[in-house]
Amino acid sequence: MMDCKQALTDAKGNLEEAVVLLRKKGISVAAKKATRVTSEGSVAHYIHAGGKIGVLVEVNCESDFVARTEDFKELVHDIAMHIAASDPKFVRKEDVTPEAFEREKDIYRAQAIASGKPANIAEKMVEGKMAKFYEEVCLLDQPFIKDQTINISQLIAAKIGKLGENISVRRFARFKVGDVGETIAITKPVETKPEGE
Amino acid sequence: MMDCKQALTDAKGNLEEAVVLLRKKGISVAAKKATRVTSEGSVAHYIHAGGKIGVLVEVNCESDFVARTEDFKELVHDIAMHIAASDPKFVRKEDVTPEAFEREKDIYRAQAIASGKPANIAEKMVEGKMAKFYEEVCLLDQPFIKDQTINISQLIAAKIGKLGENISVRRFARFKVGDVGETIAITKPVETKPEGE
Repeated sequence: MMDCKQALTDAKGNLEEAVVLLRKKGISVAAKKATRVTSEGSVAHYIHAGGKIGVLVEVNCESDFVARTEDFKELVHDIAMHIAASDPKFVRKEDVTPEAFEREKDIYRAQAIASGKPANIAEKMVEGKMAKFYEEVCLLDQPFIKDQTINISQLIAAKIGKLGENISVRRFARFKVGDVGETIAITKPVETKPEGE
Repeated sequence: MMDCKQALTDAKGNLEEAVVLLRKKGISVAAKKATRVTSEGSVAHYIHAGGKIGVLVEVNCESDFVARTEDFKELVHDIAMHIAASDPKFVRKEDVTPEAFEREKDIYRAQAIASGKPANIAEKMVEGKMAKFYEEVCLLDQPFIKDQTINISQLIAAKIGKLGENISVRRFARFKVGDVGETIAITKPVETKPEGE
């Protein structure tokens, strides 16, 4: 425990770096514990279209007891299925990198200009598209595939109310056979401030 | 088709960049095709320990016909299960980044020196550990969990012989509930030269 704390201090709070320092000292058991966080939960999958699309998702809660309930399992399954169908690129707004945001904005701007609209109208079109951007690419803001009147964030909130524990989507991966890219979405640690606009 | 070729030329062969260029022109249908490669295959999963460890893996073959055979499905399932159990970090030797290689070597060296061995012996120990490095971290070089007399590469080779099509592991993801890190292993395009040591 003391070794872990010292290593973390030496690594200036960088966890990966601390694990490297601990392993160098041969404290590999401690190192393993240093990579663990306290969250419970479950990893679930959804395989679609006869194995052509696959999703892996980790959803966290506070206790293993809740993780084993049918309610929690149903939620995790619904989220995995939703990701397979709706193809989100990020978990939350805060996870959208400034680069990804700018790249999309750039594409919308070029499209608007190519359509022959005046500059001020084109800029308005871009703003309109970007307003819907998070809804389109962030899992939590997407309308739930099985009930379009709520978004995923609200779907989770309903389960939080029912199960009495905080629940959050931690990360997901989505592969499609034959596609060059893959979606790997990993939430940043909670310390990180939202980037906004 | 011509648009795709032009975009690829404009993007100096960078596929992602080419898709951005095509989308800017509004050629999104063409853009979708430009992101596809000719490979067939299947995405499969393995969920272990009651949802605490999950694996998603894409294995490619040449035809959808082979992808649908029981032999191919068995192979993909075995590989997913193997990844869950053996925790590889890369698909192939060629996918090990120089940074990852050096970081491991650095750790082994510090361990050897910490054990009080003379410098020349320590260096020999490091070389010995690194010789086993690929076997430990590369999926294709790991001994198959269900039959330790062969490695995954040989397991695949046997299926290639039986099914008469080239088969390759394209990418995998492995999540463990509560672990800070996750493994995301994606094979580099075939043009890339092996880094070796």
